[in-house]
Amino acid sequence: MTDVLAPGSTIGILGGGQLGRMLSVAASRLGFKTHIFEPGANPPAGHVADRVTTAGYEDAEALSAFAAAVDVITYEFENIPTSALDLLESQKPIRPGREALRISQDRLTEKTFLQDLGLQTAPFADITDQASLDAALSEIGAPSILKTRRFGYDGKGQARIKSPEDTDEALASMAGAPSILEGFVNFSHEVSVIAARGVSGEIACFDPGENVHRDGILHTTTVPAKLSTGQRMDAVLMAGKILNALEYVGVLGVELFVTPQGLIVNEIAPRVHNSGHWTQNGCTVDQFEQHIRAVAGWPLGDGQRHSDVVMENLIGDDVDRIPELAKEAGCALHLYGKAEAKPGRKMGHVNRVVKAEG
Amino acid sequence: MTDVLAPGSTIGILGGGQLGRMLSVAASRLGFKTHIFEPGANPPAGHVADRVTTAGYEDAEALSAFAAAVDVITYEFENIPTSALDLLESQKPIRPGREALRISQDRLTEKTFLQDLGLQTAPFADITDQASLDAALSEIGAPSILKTRRFGYDGKGQARIKSPEDTDEALASMAGAPSILEGFVNFSHEVSVIAARGVSGEIACFDPGENVHRDGILHTTTVPAKLSTGQRMDAVLMAGKILNALEYVGVLGVELFVTPQGLIVNEIAPRVHNSGHWTQNGCTVDQFEQHIRAVAGWPLGDGQRHSDVVMENLIGDDVDRIPELAKEAGCALHLYGKAEAKPGRKMGHVNRVVKAEG
Repeated sequence: MTDVLAPGSTIGILGGGQLGRMLSVAASRLGFKTHIFEPGANPPAGHVADRVTTAGYEDAEALSAFAAAVDVITYEFENIPTSALDLLESQKPIRPGREALRISQDRLTEKTFLQDLGLQTAPFADITDQASLDAALSEIGAPSILKTRRFGYDGKGQARIKSPEDTDEALASMAGAPSILEGFVNFSHEVSVIAARGVSGEIACFDPGENVHRDGILHTTTVPAKLSTGQRMDAVLMAGKILNALEYVGVLGVELFVTPQGLIVNEIAPRVHNSGHWTQNGCTVDQFEQHIRAVAGWPLGDGQRHSDVVMENLIGDDVDRIPELAKEAGCALHLYGKAEAKPGRKMGHVNRVVKAEG
Repeated sequence: MTDVLAPGSTIGILGGGQLGRMLSVAASRLGFKTHIFEPGANPPAGHVADRVTTAGYEDAEALSAFAAAVDVITYEFENIPTSALDLLESQKPIRPGREALRISQDRLTEKTFLQDLGLQTAPFADITDQASLDAALSEIGAPSILKTRRFGYDGKGQARIKSPEDTDEALASMAGAPSILEGFVNFSHEVSVIAARGVSGEIACFDPGENVHRDGILHTTTVPAKLSTGQRMDAVLMAGKILNALEYVGVLGVELFVTPQGLIVNEIAPRVHNSGHWTQNGCTVDQFEQHIRAVAGWPLGDGQRHSDVVMENLIGDDVDRIPELAKEAGCALHLYGKAEAKPGRKMGHVNRVVKAEG
């Protein structure tokens, strides 16, 4: 491919969930087709994609045919097996690139990377066994939290340690997986920056959103976030530093804790991010189109926001509220087309347009 | 079907052009799947639909299978053959209903319907031959315009009559098709109202937009339109009258001429309308979602507008401007995924978000 994808080209998306679905819709606005690669049947993204490949990440033949059929490859989640990435990358460019995936797939690598950039993180330590956990706990202190280094999301693969007596159980719950101990950060609130970097290195950030979690899952994002002008600038500069260090192409989510000692990076996600869904109804170019623009080598949108928005996730049986939400003025529904509502499953979200910017 | 369609249901759309494409995207936001029926290959709507049937409107087997696979049927254009509608309607509800199609498929029927409702139209007369044309011209006067009663759009099937000498050529250009002579209206500008009526009879209108045409094709729509408060109210009342008379379900476009003698109805379109594309970037619920809500039996959005917008159509080689438009701040691109740009072909549009409402 050339660096700039012409309308009519096909963007391959690894993963067929709601993020792939909304990426696919955004791609259509720019005249692109999408091709979804997803092991699971009836993926939400497939309802709005030109093509769907249903195959596993170990299926070399399917991966190769997928790569042959698309012009560029992107993804909606970071835990893609390395072997699949190696095969795909031998045929077509993957954007964002491998370095972002390598780093974000492993909490220890990620925290080390951020620290090396001079950014603040929670105190952390590599945990390999009971002895390293005991040593780390005596340094970092309780309460703290033990997490698997890989494959964790939405609070899964995590165990709180309130006192040294909890270490046995916490370590057992890791089931032998390489882990990391993270100290608690005393923060007033969490914000996130949805930042993008284009092929030619330009950067654009959306206004930071303020996140509230429930049961380890994002509940609401409110824009604008409670931040001083200085904090806002810091957030953007931090995101820019990360994007440039990774020579990143696409949208990146950066979660930040707001503390009296400054902003502390909680984690980064090399993809469109749940806390950026508000952009669909607050901005002319939303995070999904911004990501597509970047991976297609197009100019980025400038991140301009026209309205204040509160995004609320619809989890599990929140779907029972759809009839009421559909009646609510100024409330934009975004449902994911998932067949079955399960506890903790993200079924959709609403964006409440609170007030237009004057 | 029950009156209210549950998420996960399938909406059948007759026609696979850009309107079907944007309807399909809107349907996905509410968790619906879409199935496109379209005779032409590689339809733009197919890129973002769950299923596509490629078949002609005379293919009873394909029509029947399509109807069996969907929960409700809607359409993106009004010139659907009656035989196809008869077959489809015997299996599944068609929304908006047959009466709206019957009336809007024929300019003479439409104008008579509007007049019977007490609404102002341009002077018109049924033309069957040279004698009726001569008689009509002497009453309506020149300049006037001869149009085929059926199958006209974007200025096609029309001939201007500047003086009585033009009648021979004008009539010949109709090629024997039943025609209507319309007098010119002395109007200052054209506006349109995108109005919706739900299954239970509730009505919601978007703010009227002001339309500028070039070469018989819509060029720009600007919102808000230049209208007094009284004119705005008139426009909404007129649209409501039409919707109720038709027991309409869905979105209807009403084009109005603004004159010192009041608003004159130019034409109505029983579908989402090019002059309503601005709603995609000006409203929380756009015209496409509004239409889907109506045909699915859902509550309508209230039509609330958060921003001023200027919509500009991209016609033919306007596609050459895409790289520049992609760079423009506050400019939302909407491309239709059509393979080839031809003169007069609608390739996409841009919505410029001019100013947020304070």
